[in-house]
Amino acid sequence: MTDQGLGKDDKTPRTARGERTRRALLAAAAQEFGEKGFHEGSISGITRRAGCALGSFYTYFDTKDDIFRALVADMSGQVRDYVSPRIAEARDGIDAERIGLLSFLEFARSHKELYRIIDESEFVDAAAYRAHYENTAARVATRLAKAAERGEVRPDVEEVHAWAIMGMNVFLGLRYGIWDDSRPADEIAAIANALIEKGIGTRPD
Amino acid sequence: MTDQGLGKDDKTPRTARGERTRRALLAAAAQEFGEKGFHEGSISGITRRAGCALGSFYTYFDTKDDIFRALVADMSGQVRDYVSPRIAEARDGIDAERIGLLSFLEFARSHKELYRIIDESEFVDAAAYRAHYENTAARVATRLAKAAERGEVRPDVEEVHAWAIMGMNVFLGLRYGIWDDSRPADEIAAIANALIEKGIGTRPD
Repeated sequence: MTDQGLGKDDKTPRTARGERTRRALLAAAAQEFGEKGFHEGSISGITRRAGCALGSFYTYFDTKDDIFRALVADMSGQVRDYVSPRIAEARDGIDAERIGLLSFLEFARSHKELYRIIDESEFVDAAAYRAHYENTAARVATRLAKAAERGEVRPDVEEVHAWAIMGMNVFLGLRYGIWDDSRPADEIAAIANALIEKGIGTRPD
Repeated sequence: MTDQGLGKDDKTPRTARGERTRRALLAAAAQEFGEKGFHEGSISGITRRAGCALGSFYTYFDTKDDIFRALVADMSGQVRDYVSPRIAEARDGIDAERIGLLSFLEFARSHKELYRIIDESEFVDAAAYRAHYENTAARVATRLAKAAERGEVRPDVEEVHAWAIMGMNVFLGLRYGIWDDSRPADEIAAIANALIEKGIGTRPD
């Protein structure tokens, strides 16, 4: 609740200009929290980066927690919106996972603050953290189930495979997207995709 | 440095009793930080849980940061010491990865504070966080390289496979170890292991 007694829903921008200001504040929050972390980051740091008055902040957000929560949901959505249309171009269910990792690596390399923000949500807003991963895993599981229907992956694919593939992608993104981006992203994606498609075992069938 | 002008090295316990007190403080710190997180956790909370005087804390640690860093290294080592001897019993390199995940799931289920502490180190001590995962991935890579020499996995296994397998394990541990431990651990380990061995693709060779 705000001083004016307005509920959260009343903070949704109603004009294009308002939407631009809200987006500028979220982009500034990504920089502020990405560099300083949640505890050291401040609302004044965010408005300074966004080049807007402190009052504008309170037009769209209630508290530092509030904008952090909005930022986690926004970044989670940005990943989805970057990756999903690229996956839609895949030739089959296995190729979809290659493109999923490739485009995630691209996104992580150009949004180096991504991990720090999502990871810190575990401590600032545990529900947002869990939602981010449960939603991501659910999208992988849906893709795999459709690929199984088309006969492109084993018929017994299930939730465990979805969490395994997501976990792979998260750590390959950390290692080859955030910490060291010197190897070509398509090389990483091809190696991981071959592991998903054929495994690495040599035992005869 | 302490008030007595002793360096860090002088804080290593020299007696069995001292070692027991240090271990009791680390176990208490795991509880304190696991429940409250680093920022809300306190040295007095740790000594209260350990049932020892505040002075004892400063015999073995300098600061809250200092014991947190020691705790991350200790938990990282506990995981390794639980998993490694079990992996040594594996029948081959693929089975080693099954046992690796199985024993990690067992450890996570009985140490529910594990993730919160390791994950928070990203914000409290980034070097300890990175070291934990780089060391873990290096152990997987070494296992895979030896299995490749024995012809049990493909000869081209490399670092990407190690990070992929570790990432799988971390997220399967979060989902099926910490958040919901209702499915049998050996079922999760068998599904993930089949993915590593044979993949999930149906394209003909």
